[in-house]
Amino acid sequence: MKTRDRILAASLELFNTRGERHVTTNHIANHLGMSPGNLYYHFRNKPMIVAELFQRFEQRLDAFFTLPEAPLTLDHKADLLEQLLQIIWQFRFLQQDLDQLLEADPDFAQRYHAFAQRSLRHARGLYQAFIDAGILLMDARQLEALTLNAWIIINSWARLPGAQPRGQQLTEQFLRRGIYQLLMLEDGYIAPAHRPAIGALHARLQVPLGELLPGLD
Amino acid sequence: MKTRDRILAASLELFNTRGERHVTTNHIANHLGMSPGNLYYHFRNKPMIVAELFQRFEQRLDAFFTLPEAPLTLDHKADLLEQLLQIIWQFRFLQQDLDQLLEADPDFAQRYHAFAQRSLRHARGLYQAFIDAGILLMDARQLEALTLNAWIIINSWARLPGAQPRGQQLTEQFLRRGIYQLLMLEDGYIAPAHRPAIGALHARLQVPLGELLPGLD
Repeated sequence: MKTRDRILAASLELFNTRGERHVTTNHIANHLGMSPGNLYYHFRNKPMIVAELFQRFEQRLDAFFTLPEAPLTLDHKADLLEQLLQIIWQFRFLQQDLDQLLEADPDFAQRYHAFAQRSLRHARGLYQAFIDAGILLMDARQLEALTLNAWIIINSWARLPGAQPRGQQLTEQFLRRGIYQLLMLEDGYIAPAHRPAIGALHARLQVPLGELLPGLD
Repeated sequence: MKTRDRILAASLELFNTRGERHVTTNHIANHLGMSPGNLYYHFRNKPMIVAELFQRFEQRLDAFFTLPEAPLTLDHKADLLEQLLQIIWQFRFLQQDLDQLLEADPDFAQRYHAFAQRSLRHARGLYQAFIDAGILLMDARQLEALTLNAWIIINSWARLPGAQPRGQQLTEQFLRRGIYQLLMLEDGYIAPAHRPAIGALHARLQVPLGELLPGLD
C-alpha cells in the first residue's frame, strides 16, 4: 500500500474508533510508526485527511445511488440496504462527529451542503424507481416527505440524540437497526402483493430495541 | 417579575437567538442592565440556568403527553401538533445546541437520557391511543418503529444535518415543516374513514420545501 493510502486507512480506523476530534495527526503518525514530518509531506493538516476521506465516502454513496437498467425488485432493495449499511459503517465517524465537523470547517460544511442536496435528489429518484416498479404506492407529497425523513434518520441515527447511554461505542448491530428504521419509514406504502416478501427483509435487519436502548421496554 | 424569572426569560431569549454556547453569564447580566454579582446571587453559573430552563421544558413536555379522558379525535391531533410546535419553538436552543450540551455537561446528559426514555414511552402511549381510537391502523412492530423515528425527526429537525445553508437562523416556519414531517410519518397508516379530514391538517402545516431548502427542487 502506498504511504498516502496507509495514512488514510489508519486515519479512518482511528477516527471511527476514537472519534475524529480526539485524534491528532501525531496520533496517526504514531499509530503508523511514522515521523510527523513524513505524514505532513502527504497531508498538511487533519482537515485535508478528513476532506479526502469524505471524498471517498461521497464517491461510494454516489455509486450507491446509480440505478440498474432493469426494473427494481425487492432483491435490489435488500442489496441496497446492505450496501448502505456497509458504507455508513465504514465511514461512521462522519455520522458521529457531523455537527462538530460542520461547525469547525466552513469548507467541509459547504461541501456537505452540496452533497446533502445531491443525495436528497438521488434518494427521491430511488424511491420513485420503487414506485415505478409497483413496489411502493405513494403520491408525490408522500414521496417528498419520505425522502426528507429518510435523510434525517440516516444522518441522525448514529448520534440518536440523548437516548444512547453516554460514551457507548457505535456498533454494527446498532447501525443495522438504523437501516431497519429507514425501511420501516416505507412500511405503510408497500403494495399488498409485496407485503409477504418484505417480511424476510425485516427479519434480516430487525435488531431488538431492548438490546440497543436498555430501559425503553 | 422576580429577578430570578427575569434572568431565566432573558437567558432563554439570548440562547434561542444567539445559540447557547455563544452566550455568557456576562452577556445575560448586560442584557438585563444587572451587575454580574447580582446574577451570580441567583445562579452560580450558566449550567444552572440551562438546567432550570430544561426543567421547565421537561414539565411542558410531560404535560403535553397527558392524555384526555375521552377517546382521541383528529381535533386532538391538530391541537397536539400545534402545542408541540409551540413548546419546541419556545425552547429551540435545546434542539439546536443539543449535541454540544450533551457533550459538555455530564449531569445534563444523564438527565436528558432519562427524559428521552420517558418521552419515548409517552410517545408510544400517545400513538397507541390514536390506534385505540381507530384513527391509525398499525401493528406493534410498526408502532415501535414509528415512535423511534418520530423521536429522531423531532430531535434532529432543528439541525437538519448539513442541508440548511450555514448560519441560517431557525424560523417558526421551518419548525412548522418539521411538525408536518412528523405527521407524514403516519400517513401510510391513517384509517380510510379519516383520510379526507387529515388533509386539512396537512394544509395547515405544510410549508413548501423550496422555501426552506432552496436548491432541492
